[in-house]
Amino acid sequence: MASLLRLPSLLSPSKPLLRRRLPAARLAASASRGQASATAPATTETRGGDREGQVTPRSVDFNAWYTDVIAAAELADYGPVRGTMVIRPYGYAIWEAIQDYLNVKFKETGHSNMYFPQVRPTSETIVNHMFTKWIQSYRDLPLMINQWANVTRWEMRTKPFIRTLEFLWQEGHTAHATLEEAEKEAMQMIDVYTKFAYEQTAIPVIPGRKSRVETFAGANRTYTIEAMMGDRKALQAGTSHNLGQNFSRAFGTQFMDENGQIEHVWQTSWAISTRFVGGIIMTHGDDAGLMLPPRIAPIQVVIVPIWKKGDEKAAVLEAVASVHKTLNYAGIRVKVDDTELRTPGFKFNFYEMKGVPVRIEIGPRDVTNKSVVVSRRDVPGKQGKEFGVSMEPSTLVNHIKGRLEDIQASLLQKAIAFRDSNIVDVSSYGELKEAIAEGKWARGPWSASDADELKVKEETSATIRCFPFEQPEGTKKCFMTGNPAEEVAIFAKSY
Amino acid sequence: MASLLRLPSLLSPSKPLLRRRLPAARLAASASRGQASATAPATTETRGGDREGQVTPRSVDFNAWYTDVIAAAELADYGPVRGTMVIRPYGYAIWEAIQDYLNVKFKETGHSNMYFPQVRPTSETIVNHMFTKWIQSYRDLPLMINQWANVTRWEMRTKPFIRTLEFLWQEGHTAHATLEEAEKEAMQMIDVYTKFAYEQTAIPVIPGRKSRVETFAGANRTYTIEAMMGDRKALQAGTSHNLGQNFSRAFGTQFMDENGQIEHVWQTSWAISTRFVGGIIMTHGDDAGLMLPPRIAPIQVVIVPIWKKGDEKAAVLEAVASVHKTLNYAGIRVKVDDTELRTPGFKFNFYEMKGVPVRIEIGPRDVTNKSVVVSRRDVPGKQGKEFGVSMEPSTLVNHIKGRLEDIQASLLQKAIAFRDSNIVDVSSYGELKEAIAEGKWARGPWSASDADELKVKEETSATIRCFPFEQPEGTKKCFMTGNPAEEVAIFAKSY
Repeated sequence: MASLLRLPSLLSPSKPLLRRRLPAARLAASASRGQASATAPATTETRGGDREGQVTPRSVDFNAWYTDVIAAAELADYGPVRGTMVIRPYGYAIWEAIQDYLNVKFKETGHSNMYFPQVRPTSETIVNHMFTKWIQSYRDLPLMINQWANVTRWEMRTKPFIRTLEFLWQEGHTAHATLEEAEKEAMQMIDVYTKFAYEQTAIPVIPGRKSRVETFAGANRTYTIEAMMGDRKALQAGTSHNLGQNFSRAFGTQFMDENGQIEHVWQTSWAISTRFVGGIIMTHGDDAGLMLPPRIAPIQVVIVPIWKKGDEKAAVLEAVASVHKTLNYAGIRVKVDDTELRTPGFKFNFYEMKGVPVRIEIGPRDVTNKSVVVSRRDVPGKQGKEFGVSMEPSTLVNHIKGRLEDIQASLLQKAIAFRDSNIVDVSSYGELKEAIAEGKWARGPWSASDADELKVKEETSATIRCFPFEQPEGTKKCFMTGNPAEEVAIFAKSY
Repeated sequence: MASLLRLPSLLSPSKPLLRRRLPAARLAASASRGQASATAPATTETRGGDREGQVTPRSVDFNAWYTDVIAAAELADYGPVRGTMVIRPYGYAIWEAIQDYLNVKFKETGHSNMYFPQVRPTSETIVNHMFTKWIQSYRDLPLMINQWANVTRWEMRTKPFIRTLEFLWQEGHTAHATLEEAEKEAMQMIDVYTKFAYEQTAIPVIPGRKSRVETFAGANRTYTIEAMMGDRKALQAGTSHNLGQNFSRAFGTQFMDENGQIEHVWQTSWAISTRFVGGIIMTHGDDAGLMLPPRIAPIQVVIVPIWKKGDEKAAVLEAVASVHKTLNYAGIRVKVDDTELRTPGFKFNFYEMKGVPVRIEIGPRDVTNKSVVVSRRDVPGKQGKEFGVSMEPSTLVNHIKGRLEDIQASLLQKAIAFRDSNIVDVSSYGELKEAIAEGKWARGPWSASDADELKVKEETSATIRCFPFEQPEGTKKCFMTGNPAEEVAIFAKSY
């Protein structure tokens, strides 16, 4: 099948993902500091004093920032073969959170998981080959399945999570007795994706219908969720296709209906991929690194113990263990970093880089006061810090749960505000060109031809991302032709 | 990467998996019966009266039975390319149960999931390439990861689940600072597999160490769990390797230890695959089809409503819905089959074929008596039937939970008895030959050479499956050479 591949470059050094490597001095430092002592190392690495480990600021170079964050937050690494990606545990845990949520939703909506042999990317081909064997009568319908699998695609220019030669995805495939059922299913699944994006990842995607030009070649209709990244480029984050009878006619996938008539089945397919992880990074991240919405964060809370004198250590670690147990028991994903090989300052930077939503600091004075310091990842500096939060279990759990909810909601609100301030309503082609030139999205009434659509792409690099489901009221005039228009379309440059 | 494959045979009809196709008359029947009526169809298909849909009896032809059951129970189907397999929802749900259990155990024992690009089957190659990048100091150890992935292997003769060109598995890879830690990890993981096999799948595997001849080429030691199938052939159901420094030396995977010395890491790897599903089928199945241990059964209880007259229907279905809700709420995986397109007799056969552990029948008389009929899949005929089991929720839930536990325990006991009655203790090569010729496993003291081991294989087709961890007391004499022996080995023919 996929066969043995020769790996010409396997043993040659890979291109380093991070242009400036993370603390290069670590190795040497660890040797001298290794067996240090029971006291924490002095804060030679103070907050912000470790600049060689920082990533390119987002505002300076968005693309460099993106790949730097992926390396520094240990989300992924380049594989030994050009264009391949190793998804590291921290990045994979985000994908697992996506899987866990969607798996439940897929099963709730009547789908079963299964596995097709890897003759992909031609999924519809093998799916219809098997559906033709399995479907005989209306009693075999609807047939609703999903698989989690790897896919390979030829890509000239690759970008971790966004475009790689191999990626992971889920692909749903369904067959129905009627067009109406297939259409309902395609809409249901784009709704599942939309809710997932808003509620779990705090990404305010815009759901809608693709233009004819942008519709999947095998589909009658393609629905999409479009997300605005931090650089204001659009990311197609998920799609759902009403395939009509296109594949069933090609493959002879037929069934006998209740009246004994032989008919072709009506089909859908829908997919979300590891590309979504890239979308999360590019929606919420900032100069300090990744920023993860609490609901999909592998670590929701990190606890950093702080002490100076050896005799403070035992009491601090005891309090840390107790707080850890309390939060863990309450179902919060919490991690203690009590290594003595890193300073608290280093840890602060590191977990900010990893986008952990909440940090708890516990020092000797906190132990005395039976309280902790709580810092929000999404509010920088003193403003995001709360001192004297009680260690009393139920108070602390409520407080932390409340903060996680606040952060989840705040990330979504911030992303919505950013999105809305970067969508311009246009009523002429000139206005569209201006908006696109400013890096924004343009929204305007559209009923022009496919040729006009391609002209816009040619001249501005922007494409119709979708005709959003949510449409303004009132009569509309196509901004390109002046003819009446049924709908507004959204144009943008995209990944 | 895996590239586009030409599929010469894609559109040619596949070899049918089931030699005698399941109810061929279904399609026609459905047309005439389709809109039938509110009354259940008369039992034209009575229990056992549907013989053309049955599988080859296990006692007649074990291999034919195996592939028949896979088709009839809808576990898998042949893919369009020779040697490939489509895992259907019911078969995939068993794999998901395996994943759910092992994922928890892997995480409990400190491993994280991740994903390597598909340059498999050469896993150790890419793993060490990346480990070399990620490991610098003892602080980066232990590094303990796992991935769930598809693998491709060249196989001349394929057999669904057991040997296919592509299969699914998990592969753990770990790196440690010391040999002792690596050895402890390799042993820990074979223990995880052993517990899994006994407690979840009711397969009484024999854990042990592979002989030098059978050890994985890259390993210092290979541990294995060996299962006896229904035809008494051995199935290697999982392995764990102590890789020593073999790969770390080849790839230069080094770390600086606490004293500043540069050392090579010590590694392990361990895997279980979809082959385990084949092991479950071949351990517990009987002439009536699959028999699933309750803990990994996708459906633990099926409810079949029975009525003859139209006016009985409402009351029966109401009782069925209530029992369904009760069991579902209690966390039991329960399915109602209330289609009117199949007779109760057809359903009885079908869910027995699918190996559902418990069937509940509810008819008009049961409704009147507020009771149900409970049948065990593992006890055929009247003996496995209990009449008049109360519908009262807590009574019913306790009863069903108890039955599921009984079945789980009984399947294991039966498999242990079968295994033990088919292992012969031998004290000479002649006795071994006799045991193997009878299709049994032979266990005897062994300290002979690799050449002797190969001679046994040449002459009997049996190999050393393992030196079991559990060893008899006392001094031993090698049955081949008469020399002192440290351990007994188990010889058997295998898949």
